[in-house]
Amino acid sequence: MDDMVIAGVILIGDELLSGRTQDTNLGTIAKFLEPLGVSIGEARIIADNSDTIRDTVKAFSEQFDYVFTTGGIGPTHDDITADCIAAAFDLGISERDDAIEALCERYSLEELNEARRRMARIPDGATLIKNPVSQAPGFQTKNVFTLAGVPQIMRGMLEDIPHRLKGGAEIYSVNVTAEGIGEGDAAKGLAEIERSYPGVSVGSYPFFNDALRGVNFVARGRDEKLLREVKRKLEALVEGLNGLNTA
Amino acid sequence: MDDMVIAGVILIGDELLSGRTQDTNLGTIAKFLEPLGVSIGEARIIADNSDTIRDTVKAFSEQFDYVFTTGGIGPTHDDITADCIAAAFDLGISERDDAIEALCERYSLEELNEARRRMARIPDGATLIKNPVSQAPGFQTKNVFTLAGVPQIMRGMLEDIPHRLKGGAEIYSVNVTAEGIGEGDAAKGLAEIERSYPGVSVGSYPFFNDALRGVNFVARGRDEKLLREVKRKLEALVEGLNGLNTA
Repeated sequence: MDDMVIAGVILIGDELLSGRTQDTNLGTIAKFLEPLGVSIGEARIIADNSDTIRDTVKAFSEQFDYVFTTGGIGPTHDDITADCIAAAFDLGISERDDAIEALCERYSLEELNEARRRMARIPDGATLIKNPVSQAPGFQTKNVFTLAGVPQIMRGMLEDIPHRLKGGAEIYSVNVTAEGIGEGDAAKGLAEIERSYPGVSVGSYPFFNDALRGVNFVARGRDEKLLREVKRKLEALVEGLNGLNTA
Repeated sequence: MDDMVIAGVILIGDELLSGRTQDTNLGTIAKFLEPLGVSIGEARIIADNSDTIRDTVKAFSEQFDYVFTTGGIGPTHDDITADCIAAAFDLGISERDDAIEALCERYSLEELNEARRRMARIPDGATLIKNPVSQAPGFQTKNVFTLAGVPQIMRGMLEDIPHRLKGGAEIYSVNVTAEGIGEGDAAKGLAEIERSYPGVSVGSYPFFNDALRGVNFVARGRDEKLLREVKRKLEALVEGLNGLNTA
């Protein structure tokens, strides 16, 4: 479909794979993109390894309309994302004046040591992405947006993205919650609803405390009117199941 | 290295990519594997799409010592993981008596409708993984462990995994926290420490509130004695930087 715009997300960092840090950037990016009509097709969480970063960026750049990377653009030895992006596109990379200028808003010349200057190394031809939180910029190389890993900074950088995106048709979603019902009770009716409405995807998500408490049904699609109809169908399905209470 | 045992993790579900659900299973699996000497090499978050699931399982099964999948083994139409695992390994799939038995611990025969019976469809030759929370089993196919997506259930299933793993040397980590210091101040010393201790990886993770508050340094490796030495070096590095306070 022409109006489907799909992004890939690459979350970079050993700390995400070791369980030391819980990623929240994927959800933030997804919620940021949804009203712009861009959905996420796949996300990968990869280690601080040059070959892996380079190859993943290259593959995703070809596979998706847009690519977002997070992590690895700080001043330390394990911050290698900028070099990997340059390698992925066979571009040179060097310290850039406009990036140094951004850093000077934060650091005195004395503080701007060799390590911090690394944050001004930008792949040739990339445009900077403003960082309103800690100034060291992100950058856009072709369809790839390279953002910081720290969630507060990453969120700030997203503010400089919307005008760069050609979005698709807006994605809408509706929600129906059914308490005291099991997924298995609703499965047959749910499959029928999804079959009847092409272009609408219907998911069911059980929620638990100590025991099963119920199911959330979520339908997503690009036709708002159709979704309102699907919502009524889901409500009728739940009503028909009420009292079963076999959770 | 012979004692490196690496796992890949595949998190399956549209709801993770839409930002509706925040994954926590990756961190749980990582923390479960660490004391067993297994680290995670890569994780992918993929949509409820048969071809993608099949291809990713196949590739990861070849690339990693172990693979963990989460999600897509419930009773509804979007629960397609079991079929995709069978397809990845060219295996048949059918309803299994031992899996039906497990379901009967939870459901009456009346409740065990066609949708719920789907949860007893298991790839040929797989062994079941016990589900102490809601009974519907996971399963192991070759080096691939297929687990539920609901975090409470996933955690319960992990209890039936350790005896199936041939772990590697235990991975240790040490932590040094430096308040009032920026990453850029420590970068040079940090790189020197990492260079001096092959087999030890050193990461630095700034932490923020409204402003930069400090940096956590984490070193990880399989030689506990070496790590104690690295910890002393990190502490000396931080001590040398104290008072700089250029954060």
